[in-house]
Amino acid sequence: MSAQLKENINSNIDLKTYVRQIGRDARAASRQIAKSSTAMKNAALEAIADNIMTAQQNILDANTQDMTAARNNQLPSALLDRLELNAERVVAMAEGLRQIARLPDPVGAISDLVYRPSGIQVGKMRVPLGVIGIIYESRPNVTADAAALCLKSGNATILRGGSEAINSNLAIADCIKQGLEQAGLPSTAVQILETTDREAVGELLRMPEYVDIIVPRGGKSLIERISRDSQVPVIKHLEGLCHIYIDAEADVQKAIDVAYNAKTRRYGICGSMETLLIAESIAPKVLPELLKMYLDKGVELRGCEKSRALIEQMSPATEDDWYTEYLGPILSIKIVDDLDAAIRHIETYGSQHTDAIITENLAHSRRFITEVDSSSVMVNASTQFADGFEYGLGAEIGISTNKLHVRGPVGLEGLTCQKYVVFGDGTIRP
Amino acid sequence: MSAQLKENINSNIDLKTYVRQIGRDARAASRQIAKSSTAMKNAALEAIADNIMTAQQNILDANTQDMTAARNNQLPSALLDRLELNAERVVAMAEGLRQIARLPDPVGAISDLVYRPSGIQVGKMRVPLGVIGIIYESRPNVTADAAALCLKSGNATILRGGSEAINSNLAIADCIKQGLEQAGLPSTAVQILETTDREAVGELLRMPEYVDIIVPRGGKSLIERISRDSQVPVIKHLEGLCHIYIDAEADVQKAIDVAYNAKTRRYGICGSMETLLIAESIAPKVLPELLKMYLDKGVELRGCEKSRALIEQMSPATEDDWYTEYLGPILSIKIVDDLDAAIRHIETYGSQHTDAIITENLAHSRRFITEVDSSSVMVNASTQFADGFEYGLGAEIGISTNKLHVRGPVGLEGLTCQKYVVFGDGTIRP
Repeated sequence: MSAQLKENINSNIDLKTYVRQIGRDARAASRQIAKSSTAMKNAALEAIADNIMTAQQNILDANTQDMTAARNNQLPSALLDRLELNAERVVAMAEGLRQIARLPDPVGAISDLVYRPSGIQVGKMRVPLGVIGIIYESRPNVTADAAALCLKSGNATILRGGSEAINSNLAIADCIKQGLEQAGLPSTAVQILETTDREAVGELLRMPEYVDIIVPRGGKSLIERISRDSQVPVIKHLEGLCHIYIDAEADVQKAIDVAYNAKTRRYGICGSMETLLIAESIAPKVLPELLKMYLDKGVELRGCEKSRALIEQMSPATEDDWYTEYLGPILSIKIVDDLDAAIRHIETYGSQHTDAIITENLAHSRRFITEVDSSSVMVNASTQFADGFEYGLGAEIGISTNKLHVRGPVGLEGLTCQKYVVFGDGTIRP
Repeated sequence: MSAQLKENINSNIDLKTYVRQIGRDARAASRQIAKSSTAMKNAALEAIADNIMTAQQNILDANTQDMTAARNNQLPSALLDRLELNAERVVAMAEGLRQIARLPDPVGAISDLVYRPSGIQVGKMRVPLGVIGIIYESRPNVTADAAALCLKSGNATILRGGSEAINSNLAIADCIKQGLEQAGLPSTAVQILETTDREAVGELLRMPEYVDIIVPRGGKSLIERISRDSQVPVIKHLEGLCHIYIDAEADVQKAIDVAYNAKTRRYGICGSMETLLIAESIAPKVLPELLKMYLDKGVELRGCEKSRALIEQMSPATEDDWYTEYLGPILSIKIVDDLDAAIRHIETYGSQHTDAIITENLAHSRRFITEVDSSSVMVNASTQFADGFEYGLGAEIGISTNKLHVRGPVGLEGLTCQKYVVFGDGTIRP
């Protein structure tokens, strides 16, 4: 960014002008990217990966600047960890770009093309959404990753990273810009808001004429704020308050294996189980062994009254616990009467992210997947599978808990929509 | 509605309580409807159709009340025509319900179910959106039609018709309510806002916790206002400023047939052509004959300078004309250099509804369908085909010019979304 521009955007009016110009450029670039060939988009992705490898030292130096500032500002250590780049993470970033280049291009695919009695042939064609705004925190690798997914799916992107990562993000953005130019694509297909002024985000959310969708990546408060303020549709991922319900007719060993994995494999991901529900009749056969395994692993247990009667080392669960996404080694446990009670609990306290039933009863499994209104519903599988790579999407820009457009892990296809194509031969409507 | 309620909702606070109660009831009913069998939903649709036939005279009497009031209020004749019911229209309403009963149920369909290397089986299951708010004007048949589409797709509905049609709508709503009860479904699955207070619409748009999507059906100003104010996502259909571009390599006869049909078959529908673009090199072969046909039919022509040189009876088109959806016997005509100029014109002035190219050149047709960003793009077919029935959707709740979720004619599938289903056998994530 030029010194001139930096000065200009000190005033709010100029900030608005600056962000709107970014929007106009993105809209214009989106038209170019939408019609670019798969080969050109892949060439750009490969060029960006090459540039990142070449500029590795620049990127690490920029990141050191950010880390120093972050330490001076006494940012929490979890945030420092997410902010930090090293040689390995830079290589992973470049490799991620090459992987996206190898994925099939969703754009232009025509499906369900059928003849109608009138003589017209009607089908659906997959097309980019247009301009995607990504608002994210800390992790600089999102800059490369999100830009690549949007580019491959034929969209233009406006990126707004956290102010703590501005130098890292600008260094990566340079590689992207050059890569786009090397492939003959407009460099404005991926733009980064080169200001740390928070008002820039507000402006981005107020330009539905230039931005078609906003994807926030960050904590719940960020996403809630953006959803509230945005005039542009938002693909939201609020939280993953995931449940496993161990049905009366569960296989005991499968129940123990899955419930243990769902909590302890990784604590901090959105697909980790936060509340275990279990049918009263099977609880004595499952809980003593399973809860001992959790305790051995260092998981804090908070149980309902009935479950506390089965094992001593549990504190009582409060109403708040049922609403809490711990994202850590804590688990709340509730004994329920039956499948109906489990479904009601999930309906009341869940976040419509991912919920699973463990059962050998086919009718119960059918009811669970039909009646539980979550973006992923599972039978006899760990909720930790809730992930775009595990589902075969090849990549993931986030997980949607929206009800419209796309639910669950969002890959390339989630960044597109379908329009109708109609072919005739001079066909008129009678 | 009870007299008590009518009195209550005179104050704004009570209006808010009333609308929010409707919302809560709709949310609860949506859970029932979402898991109801196809047979039950079809039984309800058939029962509603029967009730409408039985109550035919009641409905017509209520409509007479509305018509009398509307005439006293000197409403325009086009509106009176849309408001009026007669025996034939009531029969058509009942028949429409039976047709929707016969359509395939989209809910619960599982597609793309594949095994992943981890051992889980992943697929997508079609599920209802939840609660749909329909805001519409005049036509009382929308009450039955929209309720039926939402019901068949497993959604609960809140209907808000125009105040001029309140008696007709309430009479139809009674038939719906009884039909739902006869089929054993909650009567709150379809609710009508029993107040003509405009503030009720505002409240409906401010309850994203109870309403998942709003479908406005009416004029552009209604839809713009709702889109601006709504905190709930809106399936919008702004306008149909449809173009036909006659390419330099068009077949002259096909061009004349299609362009004539696209304008004159019906003037007032959103798929009717409003602007004709034609390549300069072919204009002398097409325009003289085609324009004469339009003039014979009584279509007023407004042309660019070049086209006016070809035929005398044209007034000059102003910049405003290119932006105007006439919905009447007026056509604007522009001679353009080539395909690029045509695409640019559509990009600048179009409404992303439906646009067609007439050409025998395959490369031109491919470019047109790829680069024109409209919800329907057509080759050698009349834009008047833009319609859910013509596309084979079986029914249509509207045409979406959104970029997210659904574009073009919206049928039952557009009122659903897909969630992920995952099947394992005690499968854990390594």
